[in-house]
Amino acid sequence: MPPFDVPEGDPFGPHNLPYGVFSIPGSLDRTDRTDRTVGVRLGDHVLDAGAAAHALGSPYAALLAQPTLNPLLAAGRTAWSDVRRALTAWVTVPSHRETLEPFFHPLSSVTLHLPFEVADYVDFYASENHARNVGQIFRPDAADSLTPNWKHLPIGYHGRSGTVVVSGTDVVRPSGQRKAPADAAPVFGPSVRLDIEAEVGFVVGVPSELGSPVALGDFREHVFGLCLLNDWSARDVQAWEYVPLGPFLGKSFTTSVSAWITPLDALEEARVAPPERTHELLPYLDDTDTDQDAPGGYDLRISVAVNGHVVSEPPFSTMYWTAAQQLAHMTVNGASLRTGDLYGSGTVSGPTERERGSLLELTWNGRDPLELPNGKRTFLEDGDVVTLSAWAPGPDGVRVGLGEVTGRVVGRGVEQGV
Amino acid sequence: MPPFDVPEGDPFGPHNLPYGVFSIPGSLDRTDRTDRTVGVRLGDHVLDAGAAAHALGSPYAALLAQPTLNPLLAAGRTAWSDVRRALTAWVTVPSHRETLEPFFHPLSSVTLHLPFEVADYVDFYASENHARNVGQIFRPDAADSLTPNWKHLPIGYHGRSGTVVVSGTDVVRPSGQRKAPADAAPVFGPSVRLDIEAEVGFVVGVPSELGSPVALGDFREHVFGLCLLNDWSARDVQAWEYVPLGPFLGKSFTTSVSAWITPLDALEEARVAPPERTHELLPYLDDTDTDQDAPGGYDLRISVAVNGHVVSEPPFSTMYWTAAQQLAHMTVNGASLRTGDLYGSGTVSGPTERERGSLLELTWNGRDPLELPNGKRTFLEDGDVVTLSAWAPGPDGVRVGLGEVTGRVVGRGVEQGV
Repeated sequence: MPPFDVPEGDPFGPHNLPYGVFSIPGSLDRTDRTDRTVGVRLGDHVLDAGAAAHALGSPYAALLAQPTLNPLLAAGRTAWSDVRRALTAWVTVPSHRETLEPFFHPLSSVTLHLPFEVADYVDFYASENHARNVGQIFRPDAADSLTPNWKHLPIGYHGRSGTVVVSGTDVVRPSGQRKAPADAAPVFGPSVRLDIEAEVGFVVGVPSELGSPVALGDFREHVFGLCLLNDWSARDVQAWEYVPLGPFLGKSFTTSVSAWITPLDALEEARVAPPERTHELLPYLDDTDTDQDAPGGYDLRISVAVNGHVVSEPPFSTMYWTAAQQLAHMTVNGASLRTGDLYGSGTVSGPTERERGSLLELTWNGRDPLELPNGKRTFLEDGDVVTLSAWAPGPDGVRVGLGEVTGRVVGRGVEQGV
Repeated sequence: MPPFDVPEGDPFGPHNLPYGVFSIPGSLDRTDRTDRTVGVRLGDHVLDAGAAAHALGSPYAALLAQPTLNPLLAAGRTAWSDVRRALTAWVTVPSHRETLEPFFHPLSSVTLHLPFEVADYVDFYASENHARNVGQIFRPDAADSLTPNWKHLPIGYHGRSGTVVVSGTDVVRPSGQRKAPADAAPVFGPSVRLDIEAEVGFVVGVPSELGSPVALGDFREHVFGLCLLNDWSARDVQAWEYVPLGPFLGKSFTTSVSAWITPLDALEEARVAPPERTHELLPYLDDTDTDQDAPGGYDLRISVAVNGHVVSEPPFSTMYWTAAQQLAHMTVNGASLRTGDLYGSGTVSGPTERERGSLLELTWNGRDPLELPNGKRTFLEDGDVVTLSAWAPGPDGVRVGLGEVTGRVVGRGVEQGV
């Protein structure tokens, strides 16, 4: 199928053009990753962007013929726009068709890799519905299901960047300590409450100086794009370990991201105002009068499927804290940004039962099992495949597809061939 | 002064040989850092290790002529021993003296840099004295000053690796939200409770596979060495933000490490058994019957000075959890290690008042100010210089010096020239 013949209305049409990193199996078997290069998705094909740029004599060949997105991420907003404009021209102007044909590969023929080198990884907790659900489940007697700080700052913590993996990577069920309230001592073993967290991840391109906060309005100068993110969580491990210093091993075993990074420039039509604030915000977080360029929310319609069966459709537009506020908060103490910093939104949960982004909430901590075609589920079983997908409103009513993030749960015995 | 004439008993004599990265100011002014190279400290000189290796025809020249320690860290335990044996010969065999003379530089003439690229940074909480002090200060009415999990696992959390800086870097006082219990709403401004945490940092060399825990006994196969670490903390920011997901902005603004990484091979005489355990440990943490190679504690005598005045001498030998246990715990869920991972011990506090590793404890949350020659201190003021130094017992009664970690507190206005 010729590459330009993307069906009308395809969510990965020329209005989208997300970036990833791919290699062609068998083309090179080197550990130095020089067989990897930046790809741009068009329909069910991937364009070798560096090779295309080179063939067309584009000045962006050096940014794109790279084994990670990091050089492009670091290049900054003007370069991001220029490269996107060039790519759009390449895949829409018919005269380029013959030149580019050799650089398109069917998605099914390539291997997709982690698209960027993750610097620091931070995870937020920005859905009020999620935070209230969790509060009600774990602190049923509390006067308020939210902690006192929740409406004043976007709560977040650092995660393990070395265990961020690309969609498709198996997830080894973690072992760890757990202790039920009635138990005298903790026991050790594979987690029996393995969960998902459906999130959106934001990818930082342009670094900032140590000691200099990034203002709310400078969000678009620093953040390149977004992806889907599954923050796999071992609830039993987390519950025992997290007081007083927060989640650690309950989260650090694996975090999956989609293979495609959607540039914010592809999501102009998806921008929406964040929900009304119920508390007055300190000036560095106050987006009431923010200009058009510091976006509030994004209207991303997420879908969570377990073994192919959709169990939830969390709406990202309901998030209380925006990605711009999270960036401003994360740096207000002078912490610097690096190219490749990744931050997750926190679990996305809407107000209704079918919009919850974790099994913890969907099954109300296991009380109400989900009825799936292949059996009941409270938490994940070995062999389960979880897939997050999403789309956003695009130009002329066409959807902008986000790359899916999928992963299969395997027991440690399976992984080790025991 | 000729390089080999190190005074007898010098804590940086040929028995020590810590590694760092240096450049010679003015020799090159390039941003690609190729003016940086690995140095080995001998007395008050630094040996350009790569250049020395090259001159002597050593096969280790390629590992040492590098802008960071990461290649050496990744090379593994056999290489670490071999390189150390070679270096020891170079600086002790008189016939090398003339050859090596040009590659020694006075410490005062070089710039020291962050010696390795930090991958993930984890901070633990492994001193029982510290944890009990903090518990008594913040939860005076609790039946036990330790949380129920404390004696069962080494509590830890991920920090921000992008803001780890080398000794000597100014520390910009962070701003953030704080809220006293009596206040109706949080206020924003520079931290008024800026503190230190005297810690020891462990540097991972050899990576591990995702999904495969590192056993207690494999500590020495993965960890290359240690350094002093100051985990600067904004107590007011931390107190307001840390429930329920742990410290974030109260810690992420700056973490300082010493410029010199002391290889574990230089600390054989400093190995000591950890304190007696009061609780039975799960097998993956149980070091009761561990062999000689999985060390328990290290006898490091730390000194904390504020503006040159020693305020505390925390003994590292009192730590309840060892670095080997921390490594085993950090990976027991299958989380992988990368070359350059750094983990901090947590604040080191001994049992007596003069052995506490934070101002929070030394002043009992500001109740008992320290009397310094230049005035009283509860928490740090702008202009204060904090220096951590340490030594360990070495061969034949000679001390092994650890590289100091120092930093000056500056207000944001100072930093920005306002």
